[in-house]
Amino acid sequence: MIEPVLDYIDENLDDSIEDLKALCRIPSVAAKGDHMVEAAQLVMRLLESADVDASLHRTSGAPVITGEINVGADKTLMFYDHYDVQPAEPFELWDSDPFEPEIRDGRLYARGVADNKGDTVSRISAIKAFIETDTKLPVNIKFVIEGEEEIGSEHLPEFINANKHFIKADGGIWEFGGSGIDGKQEAWLGLKGILFVQLEVELLSHDSHSSNACVLPSAPYRLVWALGTFKDKTDRILIDGFYDDVRPLSAEEKEAIYKIDFHEGRVRKFFGIDSFLNSLSGDELKEHYYNSPTCNICGIGSGYLGAGSKTVLPAKAFAKLDFRLVEDMNPDDILKKVRGHLDKHGFSDVKIAWHEGYPAAKTPVNHPFVEVVDRANQRVFGHPLVIHPTSPGSGPLYLFKGHVPMVSIGVGDFYSRVHSPNESILIDNFHRSMKRIAVLIEEMSNY
Amino acid sequence: MIEPVLDYIDENLDDSIEDLKALCRIPSVAAKGDHMVEAAQLVMRLLESADVDASLHRTSGAPVITGEINVGADKTLMFYDHYDVQPAEPFELWDSDPFEPEIRDGRLYARGVADNKGDTVSRISAIKAFIETDTKLPVNIKFVIEGEEEIGSEHLPEFINANKHFIKADGGIWEFGGSGIDGKQEAWLGLKGILFVQLEVELLSHDSHSSNACVLPSAPYRLVWALGTFKDKTDRILIDGFYDDVRPLSAEEKEAIYKIDFHEGRVRKFFGIDSFLNSLSGDELKEHYYNSPTCNICGIGSGYLGAGSKTVLPAKAFAKLDFRLVEDMNPDDILKKVRGHLDKHGFSDVKIAWHEGYPAAKTPVNHPFVEVVDRANQRVFGHPLVIHPTSPGSGPLYLFKGHVPMVSIGVGDFYSRVHSPNESILIDNFHRSMKRIAVLIEEMSNY
Repeated sequence: MIEPVLDYIDENLDDSIEDLKALCRIPSVAAKGDHMVEAAQLVMRLLESADVDASLHRTSGAPVITGEINVGADKTLMFYDHYDVQPAEPFELWDSDPFEPEIRDGRLYARGVADNKGDTVSRISAIKAFIETDTKLPVNIKFVIEGEEEIGSEHLPEFINANKHFIKADGGIWEFGGSGIDGKQEAWLGLKGILFVQLEVELLSHDSHSSNACVLPSAPYRLVWALGTFKDKTDRILIDGFYDDVRPLSAEEKEAIYKIDFHEGRVRKFFGIDSFLNSLSGDELKEHYYNSPTCNICGIGSGYLGAGSKTVLPAKAFAKLDFRLVEDMNPDDILKKVRGHLDKHGFSDVKIAWHEGYPAAKTPVNHPFVEVVDRANQRVFGHPLVIHPTSPGSGPLYLFKGHVPMVSIGVGDFYSRVHSPNESILIDNFHRSMKRIAVLIEEMSNY
Repeated sequence: MIEPVLDYIDENLDDSIEDLKALCRIPSVAAKGDHMVEAAQLVMRLLESADVDASLHRTSGAPVITGEINVGADKTLMFYDHYDVQPAEPFELWDSDPFEPEIRDGRLYARGVADNKGDTVSRISAIKAFIETDTKLPVNIKFVIEGEEEIGSEHLPEFINANKHFIKADGGIWEFGGSGIDGKQEAWLGLKGILFVQLEVELLSHDSHSSNACVLPSAPYRLVWALGTFKDKTDRILIDGFYDDVRPLSAEEKEAIYKIDFHEGRVRKFFGIDSFLNSLSGDELKEHYYNSPTCNICGIGSGYLGAGSKTVLPAKAFAKLDFRLVEDMNPDDILKKVRGHLDKHGFSDVKIAWHEGYPAAKTPVNHPFVEVVDRANQRVFGHPLVIHPTSPGSGPLYLFKGHVPMVSIGVGDFYSRVHSPNESILIDNFHRSMKRIAVLIEEMSNY
């Protein structure tokens, strides 16, 4: 009885692509805070076009959108998505305008098309297919679509606390996912936590001629020395107590990851590397991937960055760092430890100008909803999902923990270049992902 | 008999300012290579307007201009200047357009006005005053005006080697100088050498989502670690053999610098610092200022530098470093030692993408030409010159060593913010500097 829904999806693929392009044209870069309401309003219109009862909730930051279709069914399926995107810089590395979507060789290129506007539109389109074909939805539907996922979901807790009754469902589909390097569809059951900090050093009232470096202090050098103390060259993080709360992988999780083919050679080739960090390989590589916290420089800047030489002693320097956190690590605790580490090593002049973050969370690998999603995937893609106990990436999954068992599947693929120039999706993945959502809705009634 | 010349300078000050403004409007940023010929051509026209026999010499880089007035006198005075300027970035810190000169409160603001277009124009204007008043020049005049001073004077040796006969004079006025923090005129008898290097690390074929930092190498972290090995936190440079060839200050030089009032409190206040590097003060501070080589970060850049957060693992990182070198240190030798240091510490992945530089040089503090310049200064400014055995800055003085005893005096002052936003000069210094050149020309006939 789901055939008309799948046929509708096939016949209206072009309309769904147009909806996606329209959403991608809005440069809703959360880090810059522009165009957020414009993007939220378009998402509202898309939800309403699928007869979803949509509401826009103001927060101290970008608005949160909820959507609901209550058909009085036993089961409820929730979607978590976001309408914000990462900055598109560096623009010059894009082959086409990041905010003017372009199809080339079966792929749609745009900032945010994979993360996660493509998912958002695919899910709304799937619901619309039920409505337009007068097919009864066998489950209730809920949407939570926020606008600050890419900047740490700072105001989502504010929304969740004010709307606790809404955050309840029998299964949930998280924002991202897709096919791996071997083309097989993957599901991610968890997300690492994150602490993002901006470090800043300012030692002079203004830049000086660099000849004065013989007698004046250097902000970039102070920053370099401070950053150098965070990790040794084997990437072991040297902040006191950093690893204290790391929860080891469970036996079930280890079993799950040891089964996964990491396709090391192909991944190395994709990134143009001879070996992974510290020559990691095999099970050890996987253990790092799924359960290592990190300390990473997302950006560092000071002084003259243009062509050629400029002999200046910069007054200021800054670095943007993200620490990925695994289960049981607390971002507030890590923030204190980072501050304490800087002070202990004599870097009280290195300020933490601002920070954001949240803890990790996982849905257990043996949760029955995981099987439901796997069945739906098999019906559409013809193979079992590759089950990852967690993504190495982050998201505010912890806010849903205990209320909605979340599984992350989506429209992306290994070559989607999420957060990077030339972000893209396969049109075919977008198309079949819509059908997978439709089939999942059917499968959920047997769950 | 020099009175008409000085009167002419007074009466035509506005024209000289207009000439200077015209030259400052040309954004001849050597690091970018734009507008170089345009600036050279204007300098040619200015020289010709002073009846100087000017020639433009093509090199593999920016052209070198020479000028000559041969009156058959015993003595020859040479001027070394440059028509290129430093980049004006960061533009947003300028209170007025760096390439649209503006006078505010007796100061003229523009990129390059102090370094060294103001000097160039003041010198040409002084010669013009002799010509326009039909005052016989008592010395022959030579100009060497290059266009790559701010990027290491890479092609000046090429010109010098082809024009060795020209590089000969009884005294020379180097490009820069002015008044110190106490308003007293200063002379600089030497220049440190410099090695400028651009370090680059590229470890991935493209930027990655930062979640992959658990298994992929980090270019910015490799660079941070590498830079961290160059110096300890007391600023001691740890490159093997770096200090091997440092020539200590002579007894005469020490005597000269111990006499200088460094005005520590006022300098600290100007830079907004509580203490100098490593709490240096007194004679030790001066010894560092005049005779310490440095290792300084002029710029460091990697990853996302915009507002807010972006979680990226950057594929590339770079740093621009300048090493100031004192007498007897060889930039080629230091370059080899930097490369050797990186390799020794396991940083063969950190490339030296390009480099430029030259050695230090000094005119002896007891050279008789220094006295001639001091007499001219006393007649115009009413006080003796503060004699610095060397500047902490750099310039290709080594090319003239043994051929022209150079003394550097100029139109700048302590607040000129050379190489920084809001570069400016005092109109009054510009005015009196022209007269000082006229008087110097007269004094030279008694030398």
